[in-house]
Amino acid sequence: MTITVQKYGGTSVGTPERMRAVAERIVRTKEGGSSVVAVVSAMGDVTDDLLELAAQINPEPPEREMDMLLATGEQVSIALLAMAIHALGHEAISFTGPQVGIVTDHGHTKAKIMEVRADRVREALAGGKIVIVAGFQGVTQDGHITTLGRGGSDTTAVAVAAGVKADVCEIYTDVDGVYTADPRVVPNARKIDVLSYEEMLELAASGAGVLNLRSVEFARNHGVVIHCRSSFSNEPGTIVKEADDTMEQAIISGVAHDTSEVKITIRDVPDRPGKAAAVFTRMSEANVNVDMIIQNVSEAGMTDISFTTPKADLVRARRAAAAAVSDLGARDWLVDDSIAKVSLVGAGMKTHPGIAAQMFTALSDAGVNISMIATSTIRITCVIKADQVQTAVRALHDSFGLAEGIDIGEAVPAAGSAGEGEDEQL
Amino acid sequence: MTITVQKYGGTSVGTPERMRAVAERIVRTKEGGSSVVAVVSAMGDVTDDLLELAAQINPEPPEREMDMLLATGEQVSIALLAMAIHALGHEAISFTGPQVGIVTDHGHTKAKIMEVRADRVREALAGGKIVIVAGFQGVTQDGHITTLGRGGSDTTAVAVAAGVKADVCEIYTDVDGVYTADPRVVPNARKIDVLSYEEMLELAASGAGVLNLRSVEFARNHGVVIHCRSSFSNEPGTIVKEADDTMEQAIISGVAHDTSEVKITIRDVPDRPGKAAAVFTRMSEANVNVDMIIQNVSEAGMTDISFTTPKADLVRARRAAAAAVSDLGARDWLVDDSIAKVSLVGAGMKTHPGIAAQMFTALSDAGVNISMIATSTIRITCVIKADQVQTAVRALHDSFGLAEGIDIGEAVPAAGSAGEGEDEQL
Repeated sequence: MTITVQKYGGTSVGTPERMRAVAERIVRTKEGGSSVVAVVSAMGDVTDDLLELAAQINPEPPEREMDMLLATGEQVSIALLAMAIHALGHEAISFTGPQVGIVTDHGHTKAKIMEVRADRVREALAGGKIVIVAGFQGVTQDGHITTLGRGGSDTTAVAVAAGVKADVCEIYTDVDGVYTADPRVVPNARKIDVLSYEEMLELAASGAGVLNLRSVEFARNHGVVIHCRSSFSNEPGTIVKEADDTMEQAIISGVAHDTSEVKITIRDVPDRPGKAAAVFTRMSEANVNVDMIIQNVSEAGMTDISFTTPKADLVRARRAAAAAVSDLGARDWLVDDSIAKVSLVGAGMKTHPGIAAQMFTALSDAGVNISMIATSTIRITCVIKADQVQTAVRALHDSFGLAEGIDIGEAVPAAGSAGEGEDEQL
Repeated sequence: MTITVQKYGGTSVGTPERMRAVAERIVRTKEGGSSVVAVVSAMGDVTDDLLELAAQINPEPPEREMDMLLATGEQVSIALLAMAIHALGHEAISFTGPQVGIVTDHGHTKAKIMEVRADRVREALAGGKIVIVAGFQGVTQDGHITTLGRGGSDTTAVAVAAGVKADVCEIYTDVDGVYTADPRVVPNARKIDVLSYEEMLELAASGAGVLNLRSVEFARNHGVVIHCRSSFSNEPGTIVKEADDTMEQAIISGVAHDTSEVKITIRDVPDRPGKAAAVFTRMSEANVNVDMIIQNVSEAGMTDISFTTPKADLVRARRAAAAAVSDLGARDWLVDDSIAKVSLVGAGMKTHPGIAAQMFTALSDAGVNISMIATSTIRITCVIKADQVQTAVRALHDSFGLAEGIDIGEAVPAAGSAGEGEDEQL
């Protein structure tokens, strides 16, 4: 008997009607001959309502109690979904994260999964039951309830799939797969059938919102096959798995973009060893996530250091930047909050030279100026002006012929990016 | 250092403002030099909202999943209350029922506490923290979440008080203690200062809503001193403890009444051995709670059997009565749903003859007809017409001089009853 893990986000279970539709899909899968474990998020606005309530009580609530509060959102969902399945005449049993043994570290509100003891899930499956598991939550070794932070339910689903050795982990969202670009920006973007973990990781890290980065890392580390698909249709979506010879090998998978970051520049830093370390130690101490970093050529013993960071970290980043300027005797610091990142991702980049040149040319031809560049073996990212992001994404999608989906060996083929993922907690 | 357990019901924590007021009271108690454990219910209407949501999904939801759902109500309360205490500059830590080791049987939606492993509470208290515990919920030995049913939070509070050997278990409600009668019915009813467990048990069983019956039983079995008081004032309320020589010994504690039951009569039952057994076996099989039972004198080999049962059990009771009529070849069955029980409770009854006679005379003088009578060693209960219940309660309160609060050795003194308890789950 195969085992299918299915993950449903907050929109998919947002109303009693949608909850019933999810129950029906689960039952169809079960009747189709597979054991089913469903991992669910909190219903629609529940988490926002809880956050609002907490803010009224304490503007800076302790994170442990925040987790205690937020974990109730998924617990409501699992109970109701189990009830909905019973109403269809099937047996279902719900478990919280702590109950199925999702053991995490103590990082309240953004805990990391250390171990999954899925015994109770396996036993319930062996008893013929449909198992419903609360996403987004776990428990520390010493019994404190934790939550996993943004995208946590995807990670729960993949972790449970690894724990029960599931044949596939289906992630249901409100889009029907991973696209060569965000279809709202590029109308002829093409759905990608298969992606390797590496490509999906680079796409997710570059702003393609369909799958959460940590869940893809977890899947890669445990060999879990992910099927990313729509909860509103029965069409197949995008499969993410280990690259193998049978996989269509695209040179370029897709174009991703991200407008959630800001650029901070520290100007006229005396050009001595250790200055970059001093800046980023300050950022790290302030719990600021730093993404891209560039340092300009030194001029008259002075240099500028620029980096990007999520808008969410901006308040802390400003404080840390001021401290770094003072530490280093630098001139000042600037924030540019109207930037965007546009990234080209593709496993074929490793072996096909000239991709970077083609990318820069395409952007230049479209009148898009590049202010920062960063690369990995299978990704090139440029920072551009936020108001040019749509122009840039379309130009790259066209230039690399991603709409056509041409196989390798022919011209420049296709693979994927964006479309926004379903609303997740936090 | 003393340990105080405080229990706050759903109304006391119904809004962020009230939650803050509760946090302030807890902090005052802590600053007054006592360790504090607070047990809380779900906020105001939360439980009703969850029940409503469940009803939309499945009109007959499985009880295990109902418990999974309802347990979230208290979890929200404990997290928010801990946050409110942190906002006042004190350290607090919240625990669910499962986390503090409230171990119950498998009776989902009405589970019974088997054991309290309060280690985590003791450790947190030893660390100087204020401990917040979710009422109404527990966990089975094999890890399923349960709820304790009506009044469950009171029972949690008493059980935790027993577990940590607390000096007192304060139950906060919206009335300021136990009265000689419901003050809404008898304006000059008197608050009772001290009651024995036995008197409180009889009052609670007779309809005085302030304290839940099971919590008083638990307190008696474990010697927990209960202080029942108002969350809106600092006045002392009513202490419930083991009877001892220092306690004011009232002959009559108070008058309680109850309009939540119906009377069912099975008519013309052939008067043979085993017929009563047959009726009540049917009721038991149908999970119908039976309270008072009377059987009339046999006439021409036929007899009538009457009993009272909660209105909540009426649908099941009707079905069982029909089956019993058929089993026994009885004539038919009748339901009288406009009855009330009025009860006189007092430890002094054992040694003071004539109380029953005085009770019946007082009712008769007030024009109240009695249709059933039942007695225990310290209680006399009469079933009367529902529309005469206020007349009856006032007549008894006057006849026994309960408003005056005279000590034993003088005339007929005082002790207590009703006033509605704070809204509890279910």
